[in-house]
Amino acid sequence: MTHPFDIATRLIPLAEGLFRGETTKAYGNMAGPYGGITAANMLQAVLQDPRHAGVPVSITVNLCGAVGDGTFDISVRPVRQGKYIQHWAVELVQNGQVLTTASVILAARGESFDHQAAMMPDAPPYDTCPVVKMAGPLPWLAAYDFRFVEGAPDFSHPPGPGPNPARSVQYIADNPPRPLDYLSLCAMIDSFVLRVFTVRPQFGPMASVSITAHFTGHADEIKAQGTVPVLGVVDAARFGGNFHDQTMQLWAQNGKLLATGSQMVWFKT
Amino acid sequence: MTHPFDIATRLIPLAEGLFRGETTKAYGNMAGPYGGITAANMLQAVLQDPRHAGVPVSITVNLCGAVGDGTFDISVRPVRQGKYIQHWAVELVQNGQVLTTASVILAARGESFDHQAAMMPDAPPYDTCPVVKMAGPLPWLAAYDFRFVEGAPDFSHPPGPGPNPARSVQYIADNPPRPLDYLSLCAMIDSFVLRVFTVRPQFGPMASVSITAHFTGHADEIKAQGTVPVLGVVDAARFGGNFHDQTMQLWAQNGKLLATGSQMVWFKT
Repeated sequence: MTHPFDIATRLIPLAEGLFRGETTKAYGNMAGPYGGITAANMLQAVLQDPRHAGVPVSITVNLCGAVGDGTFDISVRPVRQGKYIQHWAVELVQNGQVLTTASVILAARGESFDHQAAMMPDAPPYDTCPVVKMAGPLPWLAAYDFRFVEGAPDFSHPPGPGPNPARSVQYIADNPPRPLDYLSLCAMIDSFVLRVFTVRPQFGPMASVSITAHFTGHADEIKAQGTVPVLGVVDAARFGGNFHDQTMQLWAQNGKLLATGSQMVWFKT
Repeated sequence: MTHPFDIATRLIPLAEGLFRGETTKAYGNMAGPYGGITAANMLQAVLQDPRHAGVPVSITVNLCGAVGDGTFDISVRPVRQGKYIQHWAVELVQNGQVLTTASVILAARGESFDHQAAMMPDAPPYDTCPVVKMAGPLPWLAAYDFRFVEGAPDFSHPPGPGPNPARSVQYIADNPPRPLDYLSLCAMIDSFVLRVFTVRPQFGPMASVSITAHFTGHADEIKAQGTVPVLGVVDAARFGGNFHDQTMQLWAQNGKLLATGSQMVWFKT
């Protein structure tokens, strides 16, 4: 049986550098697809282009407009090929409108100085952490299994006075389980509850506007993770002027950092 | 007298959405211009386009190839205009080659929930911190005044055994002084010594590949900073597979976070 994530990231080649995808209910958001699945599709288009070389280093996805349910086209353009590094420009179009842009960087990544300066946070084993039932009508939340170590969102009514801490530590796994790969890692970087809701638990208009993921782990570490949940850390430094920053980390079970990310989040009030 | 930064970010309009700039010696790097000045020029082109609306939220700059000394052309394309947010795609071309791409996000930024979750690090006053003479033949280093609170680069020969801590805290100011604005903030985000050199002080091929800056401060805070040095914090989490991540923060004298950033850095060995 094909995993829902693979159905949601299935792209059909239409011409050189042009692919067609279709949104699925499993990864639906308030309207249209969840941003993480769109990010994964932007990366998928590059990885499916036969001209691609190397493994992912970095992706920035700009969510310019709301993608609606239905089909969408993704075009990829090789911008520059260096000795080690390949740059791509990616656009998602639906009904004649550019709704998402991305830049994707791949590279030949080999043996080099290897050093981890950051420490994985202490966390109890996955299966001892409570599952938090995510409130709200967003189907994609059920496509993940989230277990919180600290900073679980406050869905109580009325919410506490706040502001709450911006940091959360949580396990993240695909539901149903699926072996980790670059695509699911790319999606998971955007799977955290937006920090404005964690800090101030009020429902209201909010949206990721630009998301960057940096792939710090080795391909064999990502593969070795299999279906074991990754440990996610998310934080934010400042809220104001209708935006806040948000930073993310995804850790492997062997204590290695697989990916880091950052985003700017818009919120109305 | 025009400040060298303003000379280095002077763009002449050639046509709608097309600008011409020229590299300057003051911001020269190993070859061609320092990445931070190129990043500032990518933002400058959008801010000089009469179709722009709003203030900067986010910029991602992909340094695809080495810009050489001389003139370069920057084209800007409005990708999408929403109710509050404007998305731009930017390309720098020299001798017919795309050498830099960027996505720039502007927005109407107003009153909203205002909260700073992160703390400015403790630091002694600027004028009590020693000036570190930066070794090496890079002219742009003299365009800044760097004073280190912790994590000064190790230019001793031979260097210590390492690995050194990845984190540095340092004051940064334009030299000569220049009132802070979005352009200089954008450049300063890339002004930190690459972490691979801080952790393992060996000269060798290394380069920023993709830089993202998020503007978290208010326009009036940036203006109020004037020529007072900003406090910079830089760190990295993991080195391996010929790349490392790097995260940056720029703090105002009033304790507010003006900008955050991240990048992926390539290094050869």
